[in-house]
Amino acid sequence: MTIKHVNEVEPQKLMNGEVLKRVFMSKDEVPTFVMRLFTLQPGASTPFHSHPWEHEVFVVEGRLKVVCENGETIVEKGHFVYVLPNELHQFINVFESACSFICVVPKEGED
Amino acid sequence: MTIKHVNEVEPQKLMNGEVLKRVFMSKDEVPTFVMRLFTLQPGASTPFHSHPWEHEVFVVEGRLKVVCENGETIVEKGHFVYVLPNELHQFINVFESACSFICVVPKEGED
Repeated sequence: MTIKHVNEVEPQKLMNGEVLKRVFMSKDEVPTFVMRLFTLQPGASTPFHSHPWEHEVFVVEGRLKVVCENGETIVEKGHFVYVLPNELHQFINVFESACSFICVVPKEGED
Repeated sequence: MTIKHVNEVEPQKLMNGEVLKRVFMSKDEVPTFVMRLFTLQPGASTPFHSHPWEHEVFVVEGRLKVVCENGETIVEKGHFVYVLPNELHQFINVFESACSFICVVPKEGED
């Protein structure tokens, strides 16, 4: 068993440091999937992109705009988001507080 | 893309209703893994048990005692817990408020 607090996990800084990514266990340490925590500062966004693997997301703090080809939705703490394999998607923090969400991918989806 | 709030997901009642389990997408709807949200009322616990698949857990609300063969640890919001395949484990809410945590398993681990 491995237990760690989010504050004990060194973040990777993406998008000029506006997006923090914390990987709880690396893909080499787990058999199937990888859990990451992303934190987007106000104004930060991820690219509008797609990839062959799915996302399962759970918002743990703040609010966020989720964009796909069919439109956009505001989500907040307690929302679950499923992104299909190969589906275009983007997360944008259009609010004034940081937003954090869990994002789980199969091992092949982790760098 | 599928978006739903935790309050829109009908919970399964386990352990005489003291443990609520919400499955965001069923194993038939996803390719690799299943995200569930468990809520333990004060005094509630899961069995001390093991299975061939791993857990990746993230505490989103409250505090919880996590038990394994080597001892026990108190975790709280922001803690990540990795349970190895075949490792004995138990979650017990020894506190006075409900505790909720995300628990992700490979598809084979979901009923």
